[in-house]
Amino acid sequence: MSETTFEEISAADFFYRNRDIAGFTNPARAVFSSIRELIENSLDAAEQVSMLPDIYIRLSYEDEEKFETELAAEKKVDEKEEEEAEVFESGVYRLRIEDNGSGVPARHIPAAFGQVLFGSKYKLKQSRGTFGLGGTMSLLYGQITTHKPAMIISSTGKAHVYVYKIMVDIQRNRPLVTDRKILLNKEGWRGTIVEFSLEGDYSKASSRILEYLKQTALVNPYANITFVDPKGRLYRFSRATKQMPPAPKETKPHPYGVDVETLQRLIRITPHRNMVAFMRNHFHRVGEITAKNFLDYAGLPLSKNPKKLKPDEIVRLVHMLKRFDGFMAPDASCLSPLGENLLRTGILKELKPEFIAVRQRPPSTYSGHPFIVEAAIAYGGEVPKRNSDFVLYRFANKIPLLYDEASDVSWRIIKAMNWRRYHVTPDIPIAILVHLCSTKVPYKTVGKEFIADRPEVKREILNGIRDAARELQHFLTKQEHVERDRKRLSVFSKYLPKIAQFSTGLAGKKKEPDISKLLKSVQKLEQGEDEAE
Amino acid sequence: MSETTFEEISAADFFYRNRDIAGFTNPARAVFSSIRELIENSLDAAEQVSMLPDIYIRLSYEDEEKFETELAAEKKVDEKEEEEAEVFESGVYRLRIEDNGSGVPARHIPAAFGQVLFGSKYKLKQSRGTFGLGGTMSLLYGQITTHKPAMIISSTGKAHVYVYKIMVDIQRNRPLVTDRKILLNKEGWRGTIVEFSLEGDYSKASSRILEYLKQTALVNPYANITFVDPKGRLYRFSRATKQMPPAPKETKPHPYGVDVETLQRLIRITPHRNMVAFMRNHFHRVGEITAKNFLDYAGLPLSKNPKKLKPDEIVRLVHMLKRFDGFMAPDASCLSPLGENLLRTGILKELKPEFIAVRQRPPSTYSGHPFIVEAAIAYGGEVPKRNSDFVLYRFANKIPLLYDEASDVSWRIIKAMNWRRYHVTPDIPIAILVHLCSTKVPYKTVGKEFIADRPEVKREILNGIRDAARELQHFLTKQEHVERDRKRLSVFSKYLPKIAQFSTGLAGKKKEPDISKLLKSVQKLEQGEDEAE
Repeated sequence: MSETTFEEISAADFFYRNRDIAGFTNPARAVFSSIRELIENSLDAAEQVSMLPDIYIRLSYEDEEKFETELAAEKKVDEKEEEEAEVFESGVYRLRIEDNGSGVPARHIPAAFGQVLFGSKYKLKQSRGTFGLGGTMSLLYGQITTHKPAMIISSTGKAHVYVYKIMVDIQRNRPLVTDRKILLNKEGWRGTIVEFSLEGDYSKASSRILEYLKQTALVNPYANITFVDPKGRLYRFSRATKQMPPAPKETKPHPYGVDVETLQRLIRITPHRNMVAFMRNHFHRVGEITAKNFLDYAGLPLSKNPKKLKPDEIVRLVHMLKRFDGFMAPDASCLSPLGENLLRTGILKELKPEFIAVRQRPPSTYSGHPFIVEAAIAYGGEVPKRNSDFVLYRFANKIPLLYDEASDVSWRIIKAMNWRRYHVTPDIPIAILVHLCSTKVPYKTVGKEFIADRPEVKREILNGIRDAARELQHFLTKQEHVERDRKRLSVFSKYLPKIAQFSTGLAGKKKEPDISKLLKSVQKLEQGEDEAE
Repeated sequence: MSETTFEEISAADFFYRNRDIAGFTNPARAVFSSIRELIENSLDAAEQVSMLPDIYIRLSYEDEEKFETELAAEKKVDEKEEEEAEVFESGVYRLRIEDNGSGVPARHIPAAFGQVLFGSKYKLKQSRGTFGLGGTMSLLYGQITTHKPAMIISSTGKAHVYVYKIMVDIQRNRPLVTDRKILLNKEGWRGTIVEFSLEGDYSKASSRILEYLKQTALVNPYANITFVDPKGRLYRFSRATKQMPPAPKETKPHPYGVDVETLQRLIRITPHRNMVAFMRNHFHRVGEITAKNFLDYAGLPLSKNPKKLKPDEIVRLVHMLKRFDGFMAPDASCLSPLGENLLRTGILKELKPEFIAVRQRPPSTYSGHPFIVEAAIAYGGEVPKRNSDFVLYRFANKIPLLYDEASDVSWRIIKAMNWRRYHVTPDIPIAILVHLCSTKVPYKTVGKEFIADRPEVKREILNGIRDAARELQHFLTKQEHVERDRKRLSVFSKYLPKIAQFSTGLAGKKKEPDISKLLKSVQKLEQGEDEAE
């Protein structure tokens, strides 16, 4: 028999112990996740101040000479097990990411990068980051593998640029500032630079990183992204447009999505002293009339002070909020989808397809969260060859999702569809693209790998893909006709001159008739037939 | 342009906002997850004091009459959307779970149940719970849907029984004790009772809950589990054996699995003043000789005070720990696998198959964590019918995993195997069972839904299933022979009497010869053939 000992751990300690969950499983995955998390923060920061994003990423060997020697030494190790070999292939890298985004106010720099669950994303607003975790986890991973502080340089464009060196006190979940400098911001620079060392494995991670950058460029066609890899190779993804989608706006909770805890928090902070004003000011799309209708329905006096609601009344109120059918559906004007034009621009730029069908679905909601689905199908051009399966690009709030595809709702939908119906046979090179925007993306994992199977989301994705597939079908049918006509025309153009020649001879004339008009009319006739179809 | 506002949220607030991640997505899933998390805590608590677990679970309607009325009212709502309908189908339940485990010391009761990331499981030890999250998340979900305190009754078997009423202060991640009573423990009772209200949907959750209980009984055949459902139906899973596997033991970190953070924590707490003693006392399977060999290899003086190691030296030490090949592999004596006999008992009890092959693989390791794989294949009897796919039971540290099967490493292995080779055709009723024990199960999600694709783990699972499949193949071949022999024998027994009769008449005799001996010898001969094969 043993005595149980109890202890409390900090959030940072929790994610340190369970870093697999946040996407930091091994050196290859860690270098991928670090780049990803920091790019996503940079894109959010630029969009927040409506700047066309300019992002520069550099990954380099920490100590090249030492690294080379180590690599040579490693080749001698043969009998090691797979796992150990994995450890040996990795090296220490230096990662630097620069952006031209909003910048982080000086007083928040230490916590924003040195504390888990601290951030600016805990709002009802569409953003790439959602967990307040990614940036700090990257630095934390760097720290536990190299024990070096991270450097953060940031300015909001005002008089100064701040340079911090930071470590994470994992057991306390607090930042440790090891050094701090303040510089004059002569050039009025705004943005953030993050630089730190981490153990990584670029050789294993590179294909995923490049794929991630390519897809990020596709879904953010207004961004410049530059990446310099450890061998000094430069990858440049230039913006194809200067048009940016409208920035997402913060929104209020919708009555259908509210629980007891949210309601209590609203009651705690509200300055309003009667239920009508309380309802109008803290809920999404609730006006005076709706508020009054609801309060009548719920049997609550209009003048009741929300701070005087008893626990029982709060529970009842929540039930009534879910039950009342007079609330307007959440509106999606707070969202920032890409739009059909920008999506088309992005796909054209990265896949150069022969044909694209793009669809933006009307706004919809799940559990009180508004969302919009955008779907596209690209055909031909540089669309990658399918092996046995479909090429699927998944995006959520303008970030690509690359892992655990088979668990994603979109994958399941695509697998269940009857593609023959749309004239899509396994040899036809198509890529399917699904983009979900929401104030809350229903991720199933902290690592943002895949999206859960919510019925409302599922329905919209299915409809979006179907719409695009129908347009593709139309194109493919037309293409089949064109092919058939081309053949027919080639038969005509082969024999018509001969017939003309022969008839001329038969009639005893010298000048052959002009057959080009006839050929044209055959062509026209067939086009007319096609259009009538 | 908008100003960014930054904020810090507590761990409880994080999991409240992202409860989908912990398995509390909707009322159906929440009632499943609550039962699951609390049963797992109870089983751990019983095992810890080597008690044969006796667990009683009761789920009842909170207010039956009100509930019935509501149900009737709900039927009138037709035009609601699917999601809203989902909300309406759920009701408020009262869940009670009693165990005879270790009990929780009075001073720890509030935090153990009212604080996230507080617990007794943050050790290198095989346990069902690992995240210090499940129990509190259940109560938190109950609170946000019903706003009622949870009741915890517990005693460690000493003089008193403690009764607490607890709520979670989600924003601060602290327990709020709303009531407390101390009773005399006249009967020397030891154990814990948890009772609370939550919104749930039993009609949707029931099949998963019953499946979960059945599989839990299968992999814990020494436990009594009783479940009373909201309709008053009693499900009893009685123990089939009083034999318990040895309790898991706490272990030290293996040198291969150590990072800078862990090493620093060890240095911080160590009372030892030289590296040899430090290595011997804080690492798994490191004795005096290994310690000295390693320190020579790493170029560190044996007498160096670990507290005087500089940051650079710590980083180097970690690299050397991973690189040195003189450490012994982690040993698995700290683990508590089920064992082939207990596993067989469990399967016989729950599936009553015609045939079972059970295999325990030898201990292995990944990233410094020891693990053991147990695999089994059951055939016939009450093994459920396969549709197109395999029936797979997945277990980790003696808990069943029911969700996201397609993402699990075992599923991928089974799908990739060539089953025809083992005489397993799609019509053959088999169930495959995989049990992984480890001090750290490589879950990919906080909800413990599925296991990641670690190469070492994959290899062991594959070998385990293959071994069992070979035994099954042998059985199936034999069965084919038996079937063939049965047919042959039936031909003999049909014609031999006729031949005997005819021969007797032909010879002009009256008494027919005794053919039973002859039939028996045919039978024996064939059995001999079989055994020789």
